[in-house]
Amino acid sequence: MSNTNDKDRTNKMETAGHSRRGFMVSAATAVAGVSAANLLNLQTANAAITNNVVAIGNGPYPVEGMAAYSPAGPHRPMKFQRRTLGPKDVAIKIHYCGVCHSDIHTIRGDWGKIQYPQIVGHELAGEVVAVGSSASKFNVGARVGVGTMVNSCRVCTECQAGHESYCLNGNTQAYGSKDRDGTITQGGYSTFVVVDEDFVINIPAAIDLAEAGPLMCAGITVYSPLLRWGVSAGKKVAIVGMGGLGHLAVKIATALGAEVTVFTTSPDKVEDARRFGAKDVVINKEGADFSRFKHAFDFALDTVPYKHDLNRFIPLLKRDATYCRVGVGNVVDSNEIGQMNLVLYRNSLAGSNTGGIKETQDMIDFCALNKIKPEITKILMNGIDDAWTKVIEKKARYRYVMDMKA
Amino acid sequence: MSNTNDKDRTNKMETAGHSRRGFMVSAATAVAGVSAANLLNLQTANAAITNNVVAIGNGPYPVEGMAAYSPAGPHRPMKFQRRTLGPKDVAIKIHYCGVCHSDIHTIRGDWGKIQYPQIVGHELAGEVVAVGSSASKFNVGARVGVGTMVNSCRVCTECQAGHESYCLNGNTQAYGSKDRDGTITQGGYSTFVVVDEDFVINIPAAIDLAEAGPLMCAGITVYSPLLRWGVSAGKKVAIVGMGGLGHLAVKIATALGAEVTVFTTSPDKVEDARRFGAKDVVINKEGADFSRFKHAFDFALDTVPYKHDLNRFIPLLKRDATYCRVGVGNVVDSNEIGQMNLVLYRNSLAGSNTGGIKETQDMIDFCALNKIKPEITKILMNGIDDAWTKVIEKKARYRYVMDMKA
Repeated sequence: MSNTNDKDRTNKMETAGHSRRGFMVSAATAVAGVSAANLLNLQTANAAITNNVVAIGNGPYPVEGMAAYSPAGPHRPMKFQRRTLGPKDVAIKIHYCGVCHSDIHTIRGDWGKIQYPQIVGHELAGEVVAVGSSASKFNVGARVGVGTMVNSCRVCTECQAGHESYCLNGNTQAYGSKDRDGTITQGGYSTFVVVDEDFVINIPAAIDLAEAGPLMCAGITVYSPLLRWGVSAGKKVAIVGMGGLGHLAVKIATALGAEVTVFTTSPDKVEDARRFGAKDVVINKEGADFSRFKHAFDFALDTVPYKHDLNRFIPLLKRDATYCRVGVGNVVDSNEIGQMNLVLYRNSLAGSNTGGIKETQDMIDFCALNKIKPEITKILMNGIDDAWTKVIEKKARYRYVMDMKA
Repeated sequence: MSNTNDKDRTNKMETAGHSRRGFMVSAATAVAGVSAANLLNLQTANAAITNNVVAIGNGPYPVEGMAAYSPAGPHRPMKFQRRTLGPKDVAIKIHYCGVCHSDIHTIRGDWGKIQYPQIVGHELAGEVVAVGSSASKFNVGARVGVGTMVNSCRVCTECQAGHESYCLNGNTQAYGSKDRDGTITQGGYSTFVVVDEDFVINIPAAIDLAEAGPLMCAGITVYSPLLRWGVSAGKKVAIVGMGGLGHLAVKIATALGAEVTVFTTSPDKVEDARRFGAKDVVINKEGADFSRFKHAFDFALDTVPYKHDLNRFIPLLKRDATYCRVGVGNVVDSNEIGQMNLVLYRNSLAGSNTGGIKETQDMIDFCALNKIKPEITKILMNGIDDAWTKVIEKKARYRYVMDMKA
């Protein structure tokens, strides 16, 4: 970790060579940590904090995260600093962070070149430990989450309409993104973060902090298209792929009243799918016969995070129905889809990003009301490489969550 | 033309080996003509007809068409018979038939193997010369059109909803399709046709018969998606490709109140595009800079009848907007479209077929009301090969129409 011990680089951000590509593709250069600093013991600090009083100081705050230093890994601890608390910022001790396939895609360069070291993670759940002088939405001690976005332009028509995930000027992602102050964002595989309060979500009491993390990306990324395409009582919905996103999609679509059919490549997930609410489960293997579902579905949500054959699924849609993919594999891969296939029943292939901030709050409130939780496995910070391997091998059941307290 | 002189095959249909693939892919076997018959002089016959009286008899009716005998052509005249008039049929003397790129795709085998000889053409305009005993919608002398469909199941939910073009049991196409009586349909490059009255369109007096033909496929194929995706006053619409379909799309979208931008590969079409109503015209050549249209369009209709690069156009859509292709190139070609491209602004790639019968009537009435006509060039029946060559070379301005009277 020579980088983090280089005192000459303390308090400097090197952002050379960054480029934005897609929604979270940029280069990041590591920030040197405070050489002799230990991690903040925020639980101790927290005890001295009262509402709107910054008892831990205004920062910058030393923090430790698990950084990737190359596309192939392994992760290693990296000390760095979070920015000084701004008037509208809240400082959050991160208790948990979910492990998303996007994290892997980013580090592996699937979505474009990045610079290393980079800390990823955009399913943060924790506790507010300090609030800025003008911040008013959260008190110290509040249980909060942070998802894929930490800022946006606020002024474009999309931001004004609550669609910050479609910000026309490019929002600021939780990691690998050029922040408004010129620094490159580092993500939630870390112990502490400073975020503008407008991009912080309140976690309802009914949801455990560890289970809240995966809702911040996986949850909202499936909730948003399910609502966009009118999934509701009486609708028949296909969920293709049942991993971190897919298993939440099954639960949410079922709670919305839809009749859900799951297509999975993993035969051992059949019972789980039914437990999550699916009425029917189909093993998706090459050559499988899907004919009994011809023109059966009002909507299909595909959560598979890599390129696969879509032409087998389009004929399962009703007229005018949409097949929406939320996963993105390697950015150079194209969806390949027969035009006649789309013409025959006026079907659409769509993509969907994560949702806006208000929508994310709606989603987590909906989950609390409907007792929807992700199925999680907790890991230690140093267990991240093993977890990634299992995600790639489709062994996650269904979301790994990094526990910062351990 | 040995086939047509083979008396042994008179009155027999050979339909062996047909297969349905896509919406108009099947094999057709030629029908032998009546060896000594001349073409009906229907103008003369017509003079003897009064309403609901079948003065020309109940058929079967000898007819002559221009048939393709191989994928590469050339067309040659073929004599054959139209079926006996059924109770709900009308017999139509075809005056004109538009030349559609689908005709070429079908004969060349782009949409699957077919058997030859096959007569294509699905933009028929003519005059009713006989009506069946139970037919009530048209009188003899009525000016009528027939498009891509000549029948459908009538009982499925799609047919019941007026979406015969999405008939769940497979509608009967004007050519190359297995008809309800087991014969293979032969198209409109011919002098006479017998069609169930429910699939016949009334041509308003304001529209010339020669100009009505192209509306029956090109017109409805662009009108249907323009309405489906809400094109109306205040909407910005891109029309990609300005040929037979595209030029009508410009006129119809403009009449619907939209602000139209045309993307064309033909610089000499710029003035025409403006004359048809386009506010802006962009030359679509490789490497062209489209950046001034980033997120500009509420909807894009792509009428290009072959595979081309779609990824340049998706970023021109607003959030949630759809890029709809109505053209189909070779059926084995796939649309290739970057998933990140679709995700970034929740865009869709759609296909659309022709419209239903009621919608087709609505379309032609709309065209009459708004003085919308295709730009046509009349050709003789034996001019079809030359016309096809010009269509492929993008020289049509903008629709060839075969004149059967000439």
